[in-house]
Amino acid sequence: MKAKITITLKNGVLDPQGKAIEGSLKGLGFEGVTNVRQGKEIELTLDESDEAAARAKAEEMCRKLLANPVMENYAIEISP
Amino acid sequence: MKAKITITLKNGVLDPQGKAIEGSLKGLGFEGVTNVRQGKEIELTLDESDEAAARAKAEEMCRKLLANPVMENYAIEISP
Repeated sequence: MKAKITITLKNGVLDPQGKAIEGSLKGLGFEGVTNVRQGKEIELTLDESDEAAARAKAEEMCRKLLANPVMENYAIEISP
Repeated sequence: MKAKITITLKNGVLDPQGKAIEGSLKGLGFEGVTNVRQGKEIELTLDESDEAAARAKAEEMCRKLLANPVMENYAIEISP
């Protein structure tokens, strides 16, 4: 199974990378761009054939290593 | 319109961040995890009401600033 894990900053957490991108876009002449937020996407292959088991494993990875639950949200998509 | 831009490394491009994550997951006892790749996700709000126009603008941003087309692929999702 493949897992796609998207990690984003929680609302209210300052996002300096997003702000920098917003500033650069404005500098390049892009108008009307707001709320730029940058997150991470991690793709991996799991040696599991059961979707529920793969999802549980990916959740555990997020909790233990990939995401910081104080500041970040994560979403998991499982595909064959 | 909101745009969600996912930027991933092209196949064949070395991904040291992904390798580091893979190593850490193994160190924590997660077995059977392979092909770990890390990408970026950028969310932004565009001052456009037309989906095609918003997509064209997001594409231009990817080409001009957000992605490196030599090493990276990008995917754009537009939502209201």
